[in-house]
Amino acid sequence: MVQRKQADFPLVAAIDLGSNSFHMVLAKVDHGEIRILERLGEKVQLAAGLNDQGELSEEAMQRGIDCLRRFAQLTNGLPDGAVRIVGTNALREARNRAQFMRQVRQIIGHRVDVVSGREEARLIYLGVSHTQADDAGKRLVVDIGGGSTEFIVGERFESILRESLQMGCVSFTRRYFPDGKVTPGRYAQAYTAARLELMQIEQAIQRLGWQEAVGASGTIRTIRQCVQSGGRTQDELTPEGLGWLKRKLFKAGQVDKLDIPGLKPDRKPILPAGLAILEAIVDALGVQVMSHSDGALREGVLYDLLGRHQHEDVRERTLSALMERCHVDLEQAARVESKALSLFGKAAANWNLDDDKHANMLCWAARVHEVGLDIAHSQYHKHGAYLIEHADLAGFSRQEQQALALLVWGHRRNLPSAERLSEMGDEAITLLRLCMLLRLAILYHHIRGNQDMPELQVQAGDDFLEIHFPEGWLEANPLTQADFAQEAQFWAKANYTLTVR
Amino acid sequence: MVQRKQADFPLVAAIDLGSNSFHMVLAKVDHGEIRILERLGEKVQLAAGLNDQGELSEEAMQRGIDCLRRFAQLTNGLPDGAVRIVGTNALREARNRAQFMRQVRQIIGHRVDVVSGREEARLIYLGVSHTQADDAGKRLVVDIGGGSTEFIVGERFESILRESLQMGCVSFTRRYFPDGKVTPGRYAQAYTAARLELMQIEQAIQRLGWQEAVGASGTIRTIRQCVQSGGRTQDELTPEGLGWLKRKLFKAGQVDKLDIPGLKPDRKPILPAGLAILEAIVDALGVQVMSHSDGALREGVLYDLLGRHQHEDVRERTLSALMERCHVDLEQAARVESKALSLFGKAAANWNLDDDKHANMLCWAARVHEVGLDIAHSQYHKHGAYLIEHADLAGFSRQEQQALALLVWGHRRNLPSAERLSEMGDEAITLLRLCMLLRLAILYHHIRGNQDMPELQVQAGDDFLEIHFPEGWLEANPLTQADFAQEAQFWAKANYTLTVR
Repeated sequence: MVQRKQADFPLVAAIDLGSNSFHMVLAKVDHGEIRILERLGEKVQLAAGLNDQGELSEEAMQRGIDCLRRFAQLTNGLPDGAVRIVGTNALREARNRAQFMRQVRQIIGHRVDVVSGREEARLIYLGVSHTQADDAGKRLVVDIGGGSTEFIVGERFESILRESLQMGCVSFTRRYFPDGKVTPGRYAQAYTAARLELMQIEQAIQRLGWQEAVGASGTIRTIRQCVQSGGRTQDELTPEGLGWLKRKLFKAGQVDKLDIPGLKPDRKPILPAGLAILEAIVDALGVQVMSHSDGALREGVLYDLLGRHQHEDVRERTLSALMERCHVDLEQAARVESKALSLFGKAAANWNLDDDKHANMLCWAARVHEVGLDIAHSQYHKHGAYLIEHADLAGFSRQEQQALALLVWGHRRNLPSAERLSEMGDEAITLLRLCMLLRLAILYHHIRGNQDMPELQVQAGDDFLEIHFPEGWLEANPLTQADFAQEAQFWAKANYTLTVR
Repeated sequence: MVQRKQADFPLVAAIDLGSNSFHMVLAKVDHGEIRILERLGEKVQLAAGLNDQGELSEEAMQRGIDCLRRFAQLTNGLPDGAVRIVGTNALREARNRAQFMRQVRQIIGHRVDVVSGREEARLIYLGVSHTQADDAGKRLVVDIGGGSTEFIVGERFESILRESLQMGCVSFTRRYFPDGKVTPGRYAQAYTAARLELMQIEQAIQRLGWQEAVGASGTIRTIRQCVQSGGRTQDELTPEGLGWLKRKLFKAGQVDKLDIPGLKPDRKPILPAGLAILEAIVDALGVQVMSHSDGALREGVLYDLLGRHQHEDVRERTLSALMERCHVDLEQAARVESKALSLFGKAAANWNLDDDKHANMLCWAARVHEVGLDIAHSQYHKHGAYLIEHADLAGFSRQEQQALALLVWGHRRNLPSAERLSEMGDEAITLLRLCMLLRLAILYHHIRGNQDMPELQVQAGDDFLEIHFPEGWLEANPLTQADFAQEAQFWAKANYTLTVR
């Protein structure tokens, strides 16, 4: 695997395209430590622009784009790999996200990674754990977002349990407080809906246990500020403080009429929904005291990025765990990986493959191409692709999982169809070529075991690949010859010519 | 679980709808042992009637139906559970199998179970191991069928490795010897194709090792008879014997001209393909001597049936293993199963549910409804359904896996759609009702742990279910109340009324 050195990136940036706000942090890497230089945040309310068909409105996208134009000034000139942009629930849900993500890429010059709820939870914990004092014992972290709420139980820098529930202050505001009116009945509806969601996870969290509860989002910070301004608590949130704020909301009857010093007007509309969700969490999980952390998703993304540069790429660990869980033949996987990398080296220049990220993707695919065998032999390439697309793979973005799933799907039988490839956008041709290299490596080691195999000469061109075996070798090994001849037929269907001599 | 006693069935029958021949065995159960009373077999060549679109021709289906009318005389009057009909590769592949299976049911009065290749392999081994001497050491069993070939390595009565490859004497005859002409070139093509298929499994079999090779199909028996009639071997097949027969085939040049005493004319057309496949197997796996067993799939089906009646249902073991592998919360599964069974008892009469098979299906679904959590939390009901539909679940037929997958898919969020249900044929309404009972049991235990829950009164009707909680209980437990109110909305979409008081 090709790894960049940390020194390559003195400056790194993380952008979090949240459902409620967009945030950015810019940091300096100093002896392997991160020093934050700049924090930016804007309320974009992307999730408020999602209609019932799951489509983002043009206006919502425009708000996001306007915000990112401002952020872009700080990321200008940062190289590939120094900036990571992550999208969360609103982009997970938006059917037309591809359009928005293309625009973002044009403005910022880097790709948006949509991350799953559990991956978001992992990154949040990473951010919180790096900014909190390193206490002993387990920590419960809660992050109420615009569209989803994440729950993590962790110890030191490791998250143990990661969950994401489909409830957020923007979506709950739309559903229960659309006109800003607050009544005890509406509040009870929102509270009950949150409690029902929480039933999915409360027992698992209680069983694991925790010593300290930390809130990590703008919503929780705002609620804490409101309660503090009323002189109700010191630094930490308590059930009593929430009760006081709830009564104050009921009395106002309307969010606009709520008069709390320091409460920003743009925070008011989502306060009732945020409070109902937080009260449900506090009741369901038995929280008596909740402190607040300023570290969150964006800081987590930075630390994760730093890890990747320092040879602690969590994705490597994730794949190793998956391989073990699925009883992958490790020796065969290693043989295929090594051969795939060698073929990559011979074809990369002519096939416009990028040493860094494409070689990584090919190596990953080589390692996991047989995971589906754990489900069934028949159609195992499809089962493997299903697992990789849907499993919670810590460290991977959705797109990475989809790309990896495509390579696994296409590692035997037919190559990926044009239709499937078209879903992969810009990367379609590259992924097809990586898939071809993977297949050749697998064919090369089709007869498992350490059979003596000769060195190959490879010549790649726009729509062809030529492989030269040593003189006479193929004739002496008719099974391999038949195998490659069959492979050439699959390539022909994809309009590529595979010549084997 | 409700289990019938063995004494219920003094007579049992198994019918094997193979791709080449249909077979039936009728047996008497005597002190837990099986005594075969009757064996029938007819060459139907179902697989020969499969066109390129995977559709069975009317003629092929008619041949099958005619054969089964004859078999039916022996199964007349045997009760549900005493007869098992299994379909193999030709029916796995036939897109229009539903039509054929409906006709079979009308004639024989029992359902056809289509089994997966690996399940077929398991049943074959069961049949072989019960008819072979119980030698020490591992046994390799090979069964060359019309459409697929099964490989098993086992020890005593347990299969360790089960594989099924997509090559068979009928399909290979169509592809390589369509007009009965035999040339060394055509034979080499068939042989190489078989070797390429075998590469998928040969290393796994070699790694496991085996001491004795047994052939278990009409094709292998016929080849052995040919070789014996030429005086080439004693009782067992050897590579030399196969070589002799091959040369004899080349010399004849045409199957019709092959003159071997005792070779039935209807066996001639598929002999070259069968021989090429067998030679490939012998070479790939290094077989020096292969004996033959008369026990096969149909005998295995009988022994499997007997096991089910004697409280050794392999399906129970399979599900336990799946639950363990997927880290299912066993206590919760047991609570849900027990509650589901209790609700079943209260609704069965009015909902026309069968104590025996439907209660079993509901219990199984209760045990495995959470297996998908092992892949990811988000949409875990879909992941669970995927696993159950596609995994090799020993003992289960395809239809049972599909039904179980439907219940798991529908255990939360929306009930199964009318479209999905329509794929389940006659069982659609029953499965919807089982799904409803499962969901109620899950809701009842939504708050995990041994919370004190009251007894329920249940009243089921054509399109409704009424649940009565004790007076005042629901009002005191508003979360459960909200939970059931939400559930009633899902039922309404399926045109059922759920009333909870």
